[in-house]
Amino acid sequence: ARRARRGSMANSKYEYVKQYELDDTLLPGCWIVVRIDGKGFTKFSDLHGFEKPNDKRALDLMDECAREVMNEFPDIRLAYGESDEYSFVLGRNTDMYGRRASKLVSLLVSCFTANYVARWSAHLTDTPLRAMPMFDGRAVCYPLDSNLRDYLAWRQADTHINNQYNTCFWALVNSGKTPAEAQATLKGTQTAFKNELLFQNFGINYAHLPEQFKKGSVIIRQRALVEVKSREDGSPVMRERSVPIMLHVDIIRDEFWESHPQLLAP
Amino acid sequence: ARRARRGSMANSKYEYVKQYELDDTLLPGCWIVVRIDGKGFTKFSDLHGFEKPNDKRALDLMDECAREVMNEFPDIRLAYGESDEYSFVLGRNTDMYGRRASKLVSLLVSCFTANYVARWSAHLTDTPLRAMPMFDGRAVCYPLDSNLRDYLAWRQADTHINNQYNTCFWALVNSGKTPAEAQATLKGTQTAFKNELLFQNFGINYAHLPEQFKKGSVIIRQRALVEVKSREDGSPVMRERSVPIMLHVDIIRDEFWESHPQLLAP
Amino acid sequence: ARRARRGSMANSKYEYVKQYELDDTLLPGCWIVVRIDGKGFTKFSDLHGFEKPNDKRALDLMDECAREVMNEFPDIRLAYGESDEYSFVLGRNTDMYGRRASKLVSLLVSCFTANYVARWSAHLTDTPLRAMPMFDGRAVCYPLDSNLRDYLAWRQADTHINNQYNTCFWALVNSGKTPAEAQATLKGTQTAFKNELLFQNFGINYAHLPEQFKKGSVIIRQRALVEVKSREDGSPVMRERSVPIMLHVDIIRDEFWESHPQLLAP
Amino acid sequence: ARRARRGSMANSKYEYVKQYELDDTLLPGCWIVVRIDGKGFTKFSDLHGFEKPNDKRALDLMDECAREVMNEFPDIRLAYGESDEYSFVLGRNTDMYGRRASKLVSLLVSCFTANYVARWSAHLTDTPLRAMPMFDGRAVCYPLDSNLRDYLAWRQADTHINNQYNTCFWALVNSGKTPAEAQATLKGTQTAFKNELLFQNFGINYAHLPEQFKKGSVIIRQRALVEVKSREDGSPVMRERSVPIMLHVDIIRDEFWESHPQLLAP
Repeated sequence: ARRARRGSMANSKYEYVKQYELDDTLLPGCWIVVRIDGKGFTKFSDLHGFEKPNDKRALDLMDECAREVMNEFPDIRLAYGESDEYSFVLGRNTDMYGRRASKLVSLLVSCFTANYVARWSAHLTDTPLRAMPMFDGRAVCYPLDSNLRDYLAWRQADTHINNQYNTCFWALVNSGKTPAEAQATLKGTQTAFKNELLFQNFGINYAHLPEQFKKGSVIIRQRALVEVKSREDGSPVMRERSVPIMLHVDIIRDEFWESHPQLLAP
Repeated sequence: ARRARRGSMANSKYEYVKQYELDDTLLPGCWIVVRIDGKGFTKFSDLHGFEKPNDKRALDLMDECAREVMNEFPDIRLAYGESDEYSFVLGRNTDMYGRRASKLVSLLVSCFTANYVARWSAHLTDTPLRAMPMFDGRAVCYPLDSNLRDYLAWRQADTHINNQYNTCFWALVNSGKTPAEAQATLKGTQTAFKNELLFQNFGINYAHLPEQFKKGSVIIRQRALVEVKSREDGSPVMRERSVPIMLHVDIIRDEFWESHPQLLAP
Repeated sequence: ARRARRGSMANSKYEYVKQYELDDTLLPGCWIVVRIDGKGFTKFSDLHGFEKPNDKRALDLMDECAREVMNEFPDIRLAYGESDEYSFVLGRNTDMYGRRASKLVSLLVSCFTANYVARWSAHLTDTPLRAMPMFDGRAVCYPLDSNLRDYLAWRQADTHINNQYNTCFWALVNSGKTPAEAQATLKGTQTAFKNELLFQNFGINYAHLPEQFKKGSVIIRQRALVEVKSREDGSPVMRERSVPIMLHVDIIRDEFWESHPQLLAP
Repeated sequence: ARRARRGSMANSKYEYVKQYELDDTLLPGCWIVVRIDGKGFTKFSDLHGFEKPNDKRALDLMDECAREVMNEFPDIRLAYGESDEYSFVLGRNTDMYGRRASKLVSLLVSCFTANYVARWSAHLTDTPLRAMPMFDGRAVCYPLDSNLRDYLAWRQADTHINNQYNTCFWALVNSGKTPAEAQATLKGTQTAFKNELLFQNFGINYAHLPEQFKKGSVIIRQRALVEVKSREDGSPVMRERSVPIMLHVDIIRDEFWESHPQLLAP
């Protein structure tokens, strides 16, 4: 709040109400994951004519918002997003806002939402924003590195499952089936069946779909030369900085973690 | 999240991580206040050239955002705002999102922020948005009606104290004093002194300043006729609805509460 | 802990672990009820040959322990017990141990348990203690006076229901029925039926059973003259003190609360 | 609770109060330490004439109570005690009482207290119990093995610091100094000075004091042959069981943990 408050007696009889603000500090020493999730995005995406099963413009917007959140809050080590959700990982030993759950969740959600509205028109160029996007958020603690990796594996496996299902579903629906028929066709089927169905019936090779759709989006920080200002002659001054970079890769297997050891470092 | 998920085994080995999401249900039967507060708004207001001590455009934007939050979430009974903060009061017995603190806080913050960005240009017409506004939020429980009234009195007394101080401070600074000199002049002074200073030195009658500055903004719901649709001949169909209305009145004294008994009704 | 600790560097590298002790302060301004409950008391009562359905010696022991807890902790306003459980009510504004849940629960449980073991032989004179009694405990907050009264009504109604059922059950079993038969006889029956069954078959007038069995035990504080010390001549020095007194009365209806207005006073 | 409850409508209007019992589940996957601590034991030990600085009878009683707690609750892997406190370590993945903090804390405290009273006379044979012993308790979560080891190191270093100080303090007091003089003599002194003081002035070789005083007590489980019943001929039936054993050893250095790898095993 912007205020120039000075000691005042006028308010003292009411100030006892501050004691009702209970502490919500998250356990020290744990990984903190803040996951944000679109509220009512089925309706929101219909309202704005998002392409099914994936609207690249909407995914790019999500990705850009997440990158801005990482620019704003340096304690975030990694972000993973799919569909209308994004998870942000804070380091085990972060002391950001004293690890208070409501501070962390509300500020990340607020930053993400602000960017979503502000950057909407750059991505969905011909689509006016007809309703307010909203995201809920929660903070979860994970004690072990393996828990954190399992959490991220859980989200990425979910991305795969949803994307494969949805790709089949919308191929069937776009070919004339009713949603109920499409659902019945897919019920209880396995990965192999779905891939075959896509290939045989629709000529879609699932493996060739964009990695962003199949793997979701991973943002980590890497050292890179960045222009920090210009010299008088107009030439750029470059400095090495840690900047968020966007990947669409497997984060379930060891390889990713072995390539980026700083992610789990103390 | 928009997804057409079906039962899947592929993800089951990771799903244990869901158990780490601890319950954060707020105590039943208490008033819930969600207060949101601008992050770094001193800097944000300088960056956008807000008028000091009060920028009516910025206050109107805050007020409009709060009204939209009330339109979105019918369980909010009352909202009170000043400067860059707003408090939302949920009924004692609300079961909105199961009273989960993180859900309530994040959704209100997200809704407010989205509106702030989306409606910015309607209020600050010639000022491009040069940084993302962000709000943190927290939820606090109050067991008694008197606690809730004291909470709101605390915020409104704060409004008065800040506004009176800031009005003097900026009058002094605008008349040529340094901020340090202005501060020294005001240090330890009482209400009567400040009013006298404003009147004698600057011809400002504090009592005549806009109520929005002195009292902050109160939003409650009232029954009103609203156009819900149009008939074929173009004539409006009116229905009685509960709609948010904006007031700038005293909420410390009994009068306000006696005039609006529904606010504290079970 | 009894220790004469002095500032020491020797331990400083480990002291960070103290930060992992999270705050568990209970919401201010609410009634706090700490309910303790016997662990495995069906087995415990069988092991010690408690009379069924009520063993007056065991109930008296419970009552005496609760009274000692009230002697030890003056912030307890009222206690209510039945069977192997006891509820202790702390005043809305108590600051006992900073309202920390684990402190309150553990100390009340510990005090109760210590007395239970120490006073066992005075009540169950010929029965050696063959297993350790254990009680769990929990703290619950109630915002309104009506919530507190409803909580206590819930426990006393439970006492009545259990006692009436158990009185019938054991009358049937003691008359030769198997437990399964007794259960089948009582299944789904109402109060009137049970009273009739007791009267017709066993000559028991339920209304004449001891109030301690039917109503449970209520402990409140009352002003009374107490001997605080003796004069040199041996004569007692009497002072008015607030002392716990034991009642077996209805606490559901208004009468009790109207007779003891201090219980709900601020 | 021992009760034969059957479905009843009589209580349903009050049962809403159960919803006020909030969840206090501890974070999964973390080590749980429940530490219990004597309330007012300086006074309690004076009242019962405990020897200073250490009363072996009182320490043995504490140790025996802790062993009984471990016999009662198999999920406790290790206990560490000193003076009037004891810490109990539950395995990372314990699901004992659903990891509810108040259940765990209250039951361990209750079990400990019951044993303390029941076993008092076996240890302090000629000293009647003149006041009720009470212990508070709290549960703390530790995410990493290293945190758990640091926690235990913190307690054992504390044991050493207190014991060395108290040994000097009481030697000085017993030799005629006032408590204030003793305190002044020791203020700010280091280990070497204290050892020298004990040796030069009182002929005490600190290294030769009992390990129980210097190291505190460690209880772990080990496989051992135990008599589980007797045959008809009176000969014992032996079975291998995991039984609590008492040690007074260093648990700060690696050696202890390397010798007992099961303690930190998943």
